[in-house]
Amino acid sequence: MAVYTDVSDEELDAFIGSYDIGALTSFKGIAEGVENSNYLVHTENGRYILTLYEKRVSPEDLPYFLALMQHLAARGITCPLPVRDREGQTLKTLAGRPAALITFLEGLWVRRPAIEHCAGLGEVLARFHLAGSDFDMMRANSLSLPGWQALFATIGRAADGVARGLSGVIEKELRHLEGQWPKDLPQGVIHADLFPDNVFFLADKVSGLIDFYFACNDMLAYDVAVCLNAWCFESDGSFNVTKARALLEAYERVRPLTPAELDRLPTLARGAALRFLLTRTYDLINTDANALVKTKDPNEYLRKLRFHQRVKSTREYGLKEA
Amino acid sequence: MAVYTDVSDEELDAFIGSYDIGALTSFKGIAEGVENSNYLVHTENGRYILTLYEKRVSPEDLPYFLALMQHLAARGITCPLPVRDREGQTLKTLAGRPAALITFLEGLWVRRPAIEHCAGLGEVLARFHLAGSDFDMMRANSLSLPGWQALFATIGRAADGVARGLSGVIEKELRHLEGQWPKDLPQGVIHADLFPDNVFFLADKVSGLIDFYFACNDMLAYDVAVCLNAWCFESDGSFNVTKARALLEAYERVRPLTPAELDRLPTLARGAALRFLLTRTYDLINTDANALVKTKDPNEYLRKLRFHQRVKSTREYGLKEA
Repeated sequence: MAVYTDVSDEELDAFIGSYDIGALTSFKGIAEGVENSNYLVHTENGRYILTLYEKRVSPEDLPYFLALMQHLAARGITCPLPVRDREGQTLKTLAGRPAALITFLEGLWVRRPAIEHCAGLGEVLARFHLAGSDFDMMRANSLSLPGWQALFATIGRAADGVARGLSGVIEKELRHLEGQWPKDLPQGVIHADLFPDNVFFLADKVSGLIDFYFACNDMLAYDVAVCLNAWCFESDGSFNVTKARALLEAYERVRPLTPAELDRLPTLARGAALRFLLTRTYDLINTDANALVKTKDPNEYLRKLRFHQRVKSTREYGLKEA
Repeated sequence: MAVYTDVSDEELDAFIGSYDIGALTSFKGIAEGVENSNYLVHTENGRYILTLYEKRVSPEDLPYFLALMQHLAARGITCPLPVRDREGQTLKTLAGRPAALITFLEGLWVRRPAIEHCAGLGEVLARFHLAGSDFDMMRANSLSLPGWQALFATIGRAADGVARGLSGVIEKELRHLEGQWPKDLPQGVIHADLFPDNVFFLADKVSGLIDFYFACNDMLAYDVAVCLNAWCFESDGSFNVTKARALLEAYERVRPLTPAELDRLPTLARGAALRFLLTRTYDLINTDANALVKTKDPNEYLRKLRFHQRVKSTREYGLKEA
């Protein structure tokens, strides 16, 4: 839940006036997304999303994200498209923040994904990976193993205030992953945060992807592992292997996983669970109680991590052995 | 900032399907309004606002609010209109809450009203008062003098934690108003909460009014007093008499104030300032720090109350003496 930055009438008028999109007819803050301030903008010409990038997004990364959206859209992945102002710019400034106006994407995100949604996700994720294969910009994944270690260094024993013994669990898992983290898997552009609220559906078909602000270059199969975590657990903590199978099979119909990728999926899934366990723990410890942000429960990802720790082979994710 | 209640996929589909408005194409929580959960709904047929009424709104008052919107719209006051489902119902239930789908109103609220906006407000407020004159439902103002006394009884000395000596200020002001509160002024339907975020403008002309969930039957001039408080003070606390004059003159061109109304305006303005001072103080004391609600500063209304306490005659609001 966002909208951190308020925009004055004069600034807003000048900003919208710099585009060739007609006069403003509506402007409403959206209560979704936790990283940035988002406004739904209606003008005489259409609907747009105005995003003000808050401090968690590095301004130097924004050209990568905006260019990626344009690249993907040109290759048939439906996603919001940055709008150019009269001078051809997409990345601008508003209320002292980097800002971009992007096209509005129709569709709804699914609160409780069903099997068919997991299949739809698997297919679009694979198409996203193929579409990104000739994107020529690079951005390192700041939230991979070295990033997790750095994040844990700032958290330390404070994690034990979130769950008993949590700092020990994280420390041990980081040591394990240090020895096991894959190095030679196929790389490419990954979304890195493809949770249900970032995938829109219309009549149970994927209508588009949003929120590319964690996108980076990393192992493609890590993106799959993030989705297994985000889409295939039930609210009671149980892993739904039917959903995982639907996700993986649909993915493989577009982009078959290599034997090495299949083999390392349990390790990648542990890493993905640890990544969200760490950031949620960090957020819970560091969020000002007055901030208008709904912090997410780290314990959900502690339970998911423990599930993956017990996984012996990829078969447990519903697929045949590599 | 709202969206308290989340709606499941199945409930939402069934709810939207009960109207003749086509299939859902978008559904986003709106980060505005503090009393209810509001969603912006796009369907194949158009745009709507879905409101889930949270606990602060009494379900038994909802028929009054919804009928008032229909009454006003029929008399040329642009406001959202409750949509009837296939069975003719406007007040329904969703996610265990009373809920209504209302039409989307174009326009933007003004962050910093200028003189012309205050004039636009004055005119539409007077038109609203005239349009409400033949509305035949009744709702008492639960936030008038007896309501303030009851609210203060629950706050008591806790107010002193908000501002030093505040409980004494409130107690004394309540005693003063008890002796002075007008009894014979013209009555009618009032909005009672016509702050800038409830008045939409397009190209500096009023495009409509929203949020009728404090509307009630009370003194019409009290509504004017609420607006003097909400629209005519600058952010530095100073009273802008030019804005007040613009508001009052525009109001009087449509509905002249009676000599008695003019005479009692300073007292009504004190009452209106006290009303928001009390509710803001109550909210600040009683809001869970984890609630996703931005509490508003009571001190703003303490300063406004002090301004009105020093006012000797209506002339100080920019109008000639009664």
